[in-house]
Amino acid sequence: MNAGDRVRVDRADQRYEGVLLPSSTPDHLVVKLDGGYNVGIDRDAASVDVLESDVYDVESAQDEASSSEIEFDDDLPTVSLISTGGTIASTVDYRTGAVTAQFDAEDVLRAVPDLAGMANYRGRVVANILSENMTPAVWQDLARAIHDEIEAGADGVVVMHGTDTMQFSASAMAFMLDTPVPIVFTGSQRSADRPSSDNVMNAVSAVEAATSDCAEVLVCMHENESDDRCALHRGTRVRKNHTSRRDAFETVGAKPLGVVDYDTDGDNAVSFRREHVPRGERELALHEDLATDVELVKFTPGMTTDVLEAAAEGADGLVIEGTGLGHVNTDWISVIDDLDIPVVMTSQCLEGRVCDRVYDTGRDLLDAGVIEGEDMLPGTAKVKLMWALANSEDAADTMAEPLAGEIQQRSTPWL
Amino acid sequence: MNAGDRVRVDRADQRYEGVLLPSSTPDHLVVKLDGGYNVGIDRDAASVDVLESDVYDVESAQDEASSSEIEFDDDLPTVSLISTGGTIASTVDYRTGAVTAQFDAEDVLRAVPDLAGMANYRGRVVANILSENMTPAVWQDLARAIHDEIEAGADGVVVMHGTDTMQFSASAMAFMLDTPVPIVFTGSQRSADRPSSDNVMNAVSAVEAATSDCAEVLVCMHENESDDRCALHRGTRVRKNHTSRRDAFETVGAKPLGVVDYDTDGDNAVSFRREHVPRGERELALHEDLATDVELVKFTPGMTTDVLEAAAEGADGLVIEGTGLGHVNTDWISVIDDLDIPVVMTSQCLEGRVCDRVYDTGRDLLDAGVIEGEDMLPGTAKVKLMWALANSEDAADTMAEPLAGEIQQRSTPWL
Repeated sequence: MNAGDRVRVDRADQRYEGVLLPSSTPDHLVVKLDGGYNVGIDRDAASVDVLESDVYDVESAQDEASSSEIEFDDDLPTVSLISTGGTIASTVDYRTGAVTAQFDAEDVLRAVPDLAGMANYRGRVVANILSENMTPAVWQDLARAIHDEIEAGADGVVVMHGTDTMQFSASAMAFMLDTPVPIVFTGSQRSADRPSSDNVMNAVSAVEAATSDCAEVLVCMHENESDDRCALHRGTRVRKNHTSRRDAFETVGAKPLGVVDYDTDGDNAVSFRREHVPRGERELALHEDLATDVELVKFTPGMTTDVLEAAAEGADGLVIEGTGLGHVNTDWISVIDDLDIPVVMTSQCLEGRVCDRVYDTGRDLLDAGVIEGEDMLPGTAKVKLMWALANSEDAADTMAEPLAGEIQQRSTPWL
Repeated sequence: MNAGDRVRVDRADQRYEGVLLPSSTPDHLVVKLDGGYNVGIDRDAASVDVLESDVYDVESAQDEASSSEIEFDDDLPTVSLISTGGTIASTVDYRTGAVTAQFDAEDVLRAVPDLAGMANYRGRVVANILSENMTPAVWQDLARAIHDEIEAGADGVVVMHGTDTMQFSASAMAFMLDTPVPIVFTGSQRSADRPSSDNVMNAVSAVEAATSDCAEVLVCMHENESDDRCALHRGTRVRKNHTSRRDAFETVGAKPLGVVDYDTDGDNAVSFRREHVPRGERELALHEDLATDVELVKFTPGMTTDVLEAAAEGADGLVIEGTGLGHVNTDWISVIDDLDIPVVMTSQCLEGRVCDRVYDTGRDLLDAGVIEGEDMLPGTAKVKLMWALANSEDAADTMAEPLAGEIQQRSTPWL
């Protein structure tokens, strides 16, 4: 078995076929799949069949590989840069998270030269879509790609993503992946051709965070309107709270997990203010199944039950954004009672905890089967319900259990 | 025509029948309607027919009147206290805005003795519902009641309202009424039987605001977690941003209009930080029509167009809560294009302005007829669209025009 051989690799219940590439570590095989992706596979757990020897010229195969590694420096960590979009500009784009269509380490360094010397880079394009067109199916592709990059030896992952739906994708990764390394989402509120663009500082700070000690899914964006600090938000608690400001992203109901102090001379510093999962604590695992037919319905005064019924029609589950502690018009309760799918109650207040045990009508909602969404953000609850329906026996129990920081501890009694 | 006569009063296109009561001003007739409400009617604009003379004992009729006035003090302003609920407790209740079921000035002073000496009070019950059961029809009743109270000589109006949907009702009043005096919504996040109840300070501060110089629809609630200051929020810009905290209400995208510094000795002070409509500048007018079939749909990733279509079915108009600058999945655009009702785009970011002119897909939305909701809060846009459809020739023009502070001036260019 040599680099250049065509191989079939079986690992757990997954099978890969492609060309074996030289690997930078003895622990991993790197296989260039027919689709163009490279995957890293834990050598110990894999069985390999050589299908054909020496089929490819390794040198040129490696040049074409999307995970090309230039000027590999053994002293630097390896960071995988994953793009979810790909065409508009040669730098991070606001809406797609695009870096470039042709995306390898050289492109990244051409776009953001400040990244040079911080890490060895692997580049990968998972999708090429506008952020508002993000779907659960792309989340699954993204989770698999991140999993494969970490398995191939990445010390951290940076996901370039449009800002509109970044919080949903970050939440999805937080539930779909157990990760031993940081997975850091970043993007840009102003495109690179504008003097006020935030793309360089965000990208550099995200790479700093990806080499840090925090093995969680993070969102790294400007903390304020200056160019001196990014906030590191937990993916399940973050929200885009402004349409256009560079510091649009905020952690809801808490301070951000940490910050990256940014210095144009490259003297950056990552620090964490709150408890987090440390690097290496968790084993890498992928839980990619999702029940994708989950709808979120926001209740507002004057709303009929027709929309609720239409949303529930054919759905696997439902998240309601109620008022206050988790209320809806009393007319809705019997409709909810008739549904035979899980219904999770969250609050459009965004901050604070749902509690349907205080008032009669809340207790009627609980009797009708409503699951209290604790203090989960409505969007996070939607993503989690997709995941819980596909990965657990009892969605109600799973929704009540904190899995990825999405439910915060009760700080003070609410009354 | 004497107090105690049964009369029919015609004013503009409205007709009232009931018992004539003594009025505190020569400018107004006060009629006790058969339903129990008292209305004040501008004498100049009214024509009166006496249907039957001396049918009621005025003394006892006045005792029963919901607008009883005890210890009337000529030196004090008159404040009308309107309740939208009514049974649970003898003091302001979190969910209903209830004061008491039997609601007159004596009850108010019994419930909140601190109010004594601040004003002469008129009491009135408009509805007896949980805040989440608020409907456009009740908004119409409330607008008429407020109009009648001001016409009857109230120097300010305080509306006791459950907190869950207070922001929607306050927005509705802001569009439905032109007012020469303050209209101040208040409520309570903790019921009166709890030591941490906010009901006394909120009620006292609301009465202070109702006697102030600001002739706008305001929301008066705790500014912080202490008991020393209430914020005065513009009704169209306020949002309940926490499920349970006493300082749950915040002005979105700006500072509150003003504050009430509260002192348990009654030495309170109202101050305004921002420009506002002064007392007496506007003539009283009621624009009570609403197109009530307007739905608000929040877009989230993975959402099908089915829910959008169901919401649009039979609706007079639609408000979409899009992502970022006002985006939805590209699949939605052709569905929106096929609708023949006004569709207003707002952003779930809550802060910042919608702008669909930047990207191709945004321009496609505009081509499909979408109306940009500027920086209006989605809930406010829903209420305004109900109003615009019933009160203007061109809903799109009206939605773009700032009417009650719901659209803020551009502070800085967004790019």
